[in-house]
Amino acid sequence: MSFEHTCVFDWRYGSLEMRDLFKAENIVKTYIRVEQALLKGLEEAGLAPRGCSELASSCMNSVTARDVYEMEKVLGHDIASLVFKLEEVCGECGRFIHLGATSYDVVDTAWALILRDALKILKIKLRNVISTLIDLSRRYVDVVVVGRTHGQHAAPVTMGFKFANYAYELARSYERISEAEKRVLRLKISGSVGTMASWGDRGFVIERTMEKELGLQAHLITTQVAPRDGFAELASVLAILASQLDRLALEIRELSRSEIGEVYESMQRVGSSAMPHKRNPVIAERISGLAKIARGFVTPALENIPLMHERDLTNSSSERVLLPHLFLLIDQMLMDTIKLLNVVKVDEEAARRNLELSRGAIYSELLLTKLIEKGWSRRKAYFKVREVVESIKPGETLIDSVLRDPELSSMFNREELIEFLNPNYATRSVRSIVERTLRYVEELLNR
Amino acid sequence: MSFEHTCVFDWRYGSLEMRDLFKAENIVKTYIRVEQALLKGLEEAGLAPRGCSELASSCMNSVTARDVYEMEKVLGHDIASLVFKLEEVCGECGRFIHLGATSYDVVDTAWALILRDALKILKIKLRNVISTLIDLSRRYVDVVVVGRTHGQHAAPVTMGFKFANYAYELARSYERISEAEKRVLRLKISGSVGTMASWGDRGFVIERTMEKELGLQAHLITTQVAPRDGFAELASVLAILASQLDRLALEIRELSRSEIGEVYESMQRVGSSAMPHKRNPVIAERISGLAKIARGFVTPALENIPLMHERDLTNSSSERVLLPHLFLLIDQMLMDTIKLLNVVKVDEEAARRNLELSRGAIYSELLLTKLIEKGWSRRKAYFKVREVVESIKPGETLIDSVLRDPELSSMFNREELIEFLNPNYATRSVRSIVERTLRYVEELLNR
Amino acid sequence: MSFEHTCVFDWRYGSLEMRDLFKAENIVKTYIRVEQALLKGLEEAGLAPRGCSELASSCMNSVTARDVYEMEKVLGHDIASLVFKLEEVCGECGRFIHLGATSYDVVDTAWALILRDALKILKIKLRNVISTLIDLSRRYVDVVVVGRTHGQHAAPVTMGFKFANYAYELARSYERISEAEKRVLRLKISGSVGTMASWGDRGFVIERTMEKELGLQAHLITTQVAPRDGFAELASVLAILASQLDRLALEIRELSRSEIGEVYESMQRVGSSAMPHKRNPVIAERISGLAKIARGFVTPALENIPLMHERDLTNSSSERVLLPHLFLLIDQMLMDTIKLLNVVKVDEEAARRNLELSRGAIYSELLLTKLIEKGWSRRKAYFKVREVVESIKPGETLIDSVLRDPELSSMFNREELIEFLNPNYATRSVRSIVERTLRYVEELLNR
Amino acid sequence: MSFEHTCVFDWRYGSLEMRDLFKAENIVKTYIRVEQALLKGLEEAGLAPRGCSELASSCMNSVTARDVYEMEKVLGHDIASLVFKLEEVCGECGRFIHLGATSYDVVDTAWALILRDALKILKIKLRNVISTLIDLSRRYVDVVVVGRTHGQHAAPVTMGFKFANYAYELARSYERISEAEKRVLRLKISGSVGTMASWGDRGFVIERTMEKELGLQAHLITTQVAPRDGFAELASVLAILASQLDRLALEIRELSRSEIGEVYESMQRVGSSAMPHKRNPVIAERISGLAKIARGFVTPALENIPLMHERDLTNSSSERVLLPHLFLLIDQMLMDTIKLLNVVKVDEEAARRNLELSRGAIYSELLLTKLIEKGWSRRKAYFKVREVVESIKPGETLIDSVLRDPELSSMFNREELIEFLNPNYATRSVRSIVERTLRYVEELLNR
Repeated sequence: MSFEHTCVFDWRYGSLEMRDLFKAENIVKTYIRVEQALLKGLEEAGLAPRGCSELASSCMNSVTARDVYEMEKVLGHDIASLVFKLEEVCGECGRFIHLGATSYDVVDTAWALILRDALKILKIKLRNVISTLIDLSRRYVDVVVVGRTHGQHAAPVTMGFKFANYAYELARSYERISEAEKRVLRLKISGSVGTMASWGDRGFVIERTMEKELGLQAHLITTQVAPRDGFAELASVLAILASQLDRLALEIRELSRSEIGEVYESMQRVGSSAMPHKRNPVIAERISGLAKIARGFVTPALENIPLMHERDLTNSSSERVLLPHLFLLIDQMLMDTIKLLNVVKVDEEAARRNLELSRGAIYSELLLTKLIEKGWSRRKAYFKVREVVESIKPGETLIDSVLRDPELSSMFNREELIEFLNPNYATRSVRSIVERTLRYVEELLNR
Repeated sequence: MSFEHTCVFDWRYGSLEMRDLFKAENIVKTYIRVEQALLKGLEEAGLAPRGCSELASSCMNSVTARDVYEMEKVLGHDIASLVFKLEEVCGECGRFIHLGATSYDVVDTAWALILRDALKILKIKLRNVISTLIDLSRRYVDVVVVGRTHGQHAAPVTMGFKFANYAYELARSYERISEAEKRVLRLKISGSVGTMASWGDRGFVIERTMEKELGLQAHLITTQVAPRDGFAELASVLAILASQLDRLALEIRELSRSEIGEVYESMQRVGSSAMPHKRNPVIAERISGLAKIARGFVTPALENIPLMHERDLTNSSSERVLLPHLFLLIDQMLMDTIKLLNVVKVDEEAARRNLELSRGAIYSELLLTKLIEKGWSRRKAYFKVREVVESIKPGETLIDSVLRDPELSSMFNREELIEFLNPNYATRSVRSIVERTLRYVEELLNR
Repeated sequence: MSFEHTCVFDWRYGSLEMRDLFKAENIVKTYIRVEQALLKGLEEAGLAPRGCSELASSCMNSVTARDVYEMEKVLGHDIASLVFKLEEVCGECGRFIHLGATSYDVVDTAWALILRDALKILKIKLRNVISTLIDLSRRYVDVVVVGRTHGQHAAPVTMGFKFANYAYELARSYERISEAEKRVLRLKISGSVGTMASWGDRGFVIERTMEKELGLQAHLITTQVAPRDGFAELASVLAILASQLDRLALEIRELSRSEIGEVYESMQRVGSSAMPHKRNPVIAERISGLAKIARGFVTPALENIPLMHERDLTNSSSERVLLPHLFLLIDQMLMDTIKLLNVVKVDEEAARRNLELSRGAIYSELLLTKLIEKGWSRRKAYFKVREVVESIKPGETLIDSVLRDPELSSMFNREELIEFLNPNYATRSVRSIVERTLRYVEELLNR
Repeated sequence: MSFEHTCVFDWRYGSLEMRDLFKAENIVKTYIRVEQALLKGLEEAGLAPRGCSELASSCMNSVTARDVYEMEKVLGHDIASLVFKLEEVCGECGRFIHLGATSYDVVDTAWALILRDALKILKIKLRNVISTLIDLSRRYVDVVVVGRTHGQHAAPVTMGFKFANYAYELARSYERISEAEKRVLRLKISGSVGTMASWGDRGFVIERTMEKELGLQAHLITTQVAPRDGFAELASVLAILASQLDRLALEIRELSRSEIGEVYESMQRVGSSAMPHKRNPVIAERISGLAKIARGFVTPALENIPLMHERDLTNSSSERVLLPHLFLLIDQMLMDTIKLLNVVKVDEEAARRNLELSRGAIYSELLLTKLIEKGWSRRKAYFKVREVVESIKPGETLIDSVLRDPELSSMFNREELIEFLNPNYATRSVRSIVERTLRYVEELLNR
């Protein structure tokens, strides 16, 4: 912890590897990498002398973020400072650096490179989360628990079924992020208003060379900048991911309630400064907390789309805040989710206890279906089931109440009722559903 | 105009075809269509008698939105009311309707069907917008205009180049919407907590039958409801589209300024109640206005993702507001954009006048590049160009100022300067860039 | 239910009285009222003949929304249509109507009048909510229930204490709305760019007359429109209110959980189409659902602030959507909250049962404090309390565990422990806190 | 610049004084200050020995942020770590520190103290902005410029009139912030669930003592935490302020356009790495850029309101991000606005040129009014004015066109027309309006 930070992402939240991507040193290094690729392109296009790009490559790396920053204080423009600095150290070839380019050829292409790395980090962590969910899903596929809708006991599911749902939902995010990449991770090399004015048709040679050098496909057309819908899409898909992690965290938080207790975060820490007895689901709560911020980053990203004419600068300061914070935020959320899934414990005893809490009312849907199958109208069946559910006496179960009903007791005996009013019957399709889901998710991740 | 509306989308904004999709009549009709497919599925699965689905199909269509609404007033539950009503009119087969299903099997599948139609409408209009942009791009590809960054004259582009940028950006949205469809337009048929509890393994037969009947692929797993990230993605991609249309509208609004006048909305209307002389870009302004609302719909859609356990109901009221308004909004924005592109006129005379306004300063980048090519350092060239630009005297152009500079006048004569400091030279790559872009866009739309 | 609506606020949500305010008929009627006041002002200022305003007043009322709409179809401008129409019916005085004014003199002043009525409706309902909370607070001030933090049992509170917290929070909203009014509900009468150009210094007479006629204070300066921060503030304070109601609804939803059951919505309805046994907290869920939409309306309202120069039109379409929907939404939420508070029942038996669930652990803070008072260090006390809490055996309570501890049992006997480890001791300040809060709230409402 | 930051607010944006407030050192120092006040309260209430608070005060200050952080790594809880640390260094009195309190008694009260300082900083800067606007308003009150609506020339205003509008709008924000303070800057001292359980009625003595010590009024009731609507209000009012500054910045950006040129940022910097001739309004653009982020912070702040029961922890991580960034953001925007207003220059020559651009059409409203005064119907006058405006020939003005019209030329001669179709006549009320506005603003600031 350096006490020089006001921003929690600089010490408390986010991984070192992600932070490094967004520090000045790496940003300037990436700018230089783009300038090197451009110089190579200029050489291929015959606009810089043969050999220049090789020659200049090493000297360019001697320029540091600090050098640029010192000059920026005078010039008030970061890329201009970088370019002057690079020229200074690169002798004869120096003047070809940045030739014909505009600042955002460098900045936008550098963003593409940095975000490619950042997305790689996020995707590895997301795969990790999903894999853990797959494991948990298989481990707990047979542990029947209460399914709840509206906070009310509804019908049985299994704990593994719950995890499989999350695996499926997150796999959708993985797919979404992967699809977004082709629109966001793009080379931008088209000069000050997008016309390649300084290069003429040789601009296409530069573009092709840089595509190869940097492993990025170029935008087909741009203004001074790449279209900002890319970052807006990124912010959206990451905010969706964040909200899904929020849902998983909320599940854990709710299942951890004192009255429910089906899961808990098994970590020994001081839970409260005033109440020594407490075991709070703090990791899950942090995930839910950060998700709110993630949602808040979407609107500014959308507002960055309508830039004026060939661009205005209002995206610049906004993205300087938006991009690092967004990625560090999601990074932290994914790390927290991994940790959460590793410390979360299932209390099967509590699950069983809760399952019996409604004394069979959670099977009422099955009874309803059976009555209709036996020839009753839905309406009649519906109100009859409600009646017997409401007539369950203390100490009884639904089956007892059914057997006390004259009409129903003439249709079923206890054995017949037990056969279909039980947790295993209610979840008899769960294994198939879970298995096909996990297969699908695994295939998607292996694509 | 019915004076019974408080909502502008019910009379002022949005098309009739889109409105019809979201009216009670169509919603109930679509619910019935889902129930019919389900009945067919039950029949295939052996859970309803052979022939029932055919028999019931026609009688089901006799139930109207009003019937459902009248019963809902008593029961307080819309799908339960529908199902009771359907049972009433369908005789012996009636009781098999909805057997084993939960309300959101019907609601979520109906949303998928309605949104499929709604997206079809939006995509046709979006294709129309893009096609018009392609036409405009080809028509004006050679009309050189000032390119502006920071609101300042930067360097020449062409009017067709501008339109091609918008065509490209919107094509990205078209692609994005198309990719989202496979995640959003899905069958949901899995019962009250997603386990197919009432059907056992025969649930998969029902699912397959309904997939075929409705032309929708099923979710691999769900809770009581389909995962809400689908609608959040939809809201995001549509808000991105809205913000792109906003950018196009902003371009028109700014180019329509009294001082610029390169384009104008050519429609005869009363422009102002106080100032009869005004020609306001009101269509473009309406587009920008509605885009703000579209951006505002993303956060609620994101907030709908973290539902509790197997679902809570908080997505319901929220989506009832969100979905119709979002689609009608985008619908109106697309119609407005089509209208805008059809009434917008380019004033080539004004374009030419503005091009000369900077008296050649917009070619300064070309001069800079040339000086570097001639062996100058970037720094020296940069400050020299700035100097000659600032020395342009009233009545002069950049070329005059260059020729007054001792150092530069020894390097170039007037003819040489004219050769590369002119609009056509500055935009000599534009046709190639535009052409490859339009080809790309056309291919994407034909995919 | 008219089946001509796509918008739920036109039939399902919102009160009739609120809807009427935002219908075309009332909007046009309010425009006319502003024009009448303006005519009176013109007369006072000597710009219209004496008697004209009285003469014209009655004829002006004959113009209907339909008349205006028919003409708008031709002219494409609503206020211009209205003014032409008014002139038509008002004979000699007709031409003085709207003299020197701009459309937004009428529109913005009309918004102020309509929103004054709308806020009146909301404030009455909010007072009603708060009063009910005060009643509930007094009724349940002594019913001890578990207080929960992180979803975990923390320490006892009372049900009345809970309600008092909500009363206090909502009173803060009441105060906030009242403070916002003076900035939002303002006359705007300054002509086409805010300079009163057509009236010269006589503009101030017109302004003063209209202030008196309409009971509104004028803005001190404007552009063509009143500053939009007013509506943004309104959207903010209403979204804050919505989020507070969301918090109350969430409390009810969580306390209604099957495992908790301390409260429930006591209404007989069909709870689920598949599960006849369910009692879902659907009113509370609807409140939480609509709150999400309310939060989404703040950003567009903020985006309306930065209008260009003396205004652009992008606020217009945006506000046409924003204002009616926002008010109808809050209106529905308040009605739902009133209904919720009227049907919610407290199950004191369940409350008692939950209170005992932790077997005394919820008093651990009191034990901690007592040990420190008795001379222990916090650290020693903290870990000792944790130890005895974790040592509570099945069937035991905290007191038993304390008495099994050698160190502690030498300090306390059972009677002494019972004295301060009990619900009434833990909540002994609650009545005073609640009473001072309710007094404060009542005074605030009576201000 | 330390290269250890990923967050721009830690080096590029925000003032040192604001950053210091949000660094760990100051946060811990403020926590200690609250603990000291609490100890004093405990002493007054007879819960700690007389003299303890004085005795402990100095030793408490020896604990540093680093000490706390080292222990937090072990305990995983910041306030518990602080309290253990404080106890360690404070001898006999140590164990009374934090007695009966919960972490958020300290955290929320510390936020109130820190935000009081932060708001002081913002308000000083905001006053500075407003004062500068007042000066500019007075300086340029007579410089007539074109007023624009829809980007079109509408009617004359003066440059000072423009500035006065901004002064008025920002004064509304100043008032709004001041009103919010009483709800946000509050003492929170009520224990773990808000019941003062450890203190009984002596809690009120503690509360009163701390109110005096810290100069903060206490909340009347709370849960474990102060109600979160306070921070949501703060985020809202600051986002409103940000959007107003955005509007001012947008004005400057638009008036700086190459074609308009009425104002410009007069600073010598490198404007573009490719185009040496450019003078970009980069300060204004940065303001507009950051405003987008500010708007994005409102929704998370709203989402923090609905905490569960007596609180959940999801506000914590969210506020750790939200509060420092929000304040540093607004801090930077205000500093930028001050700088902007100091470097902005008005080009009166350009203003005059633009005023003549419409060749008198901007006086059409005055002609309209005059015709109505002379007895014409509005409709006749409206279309006649439009006709003469459209008939202005090259080289002519509106007056020439009027005099060519047979009907009109019989009503006016050139002298009469000149008398009311001129800039001074059009702005004859401006001085009065501006003066009353500035008086109002000055009074408001002096309140």
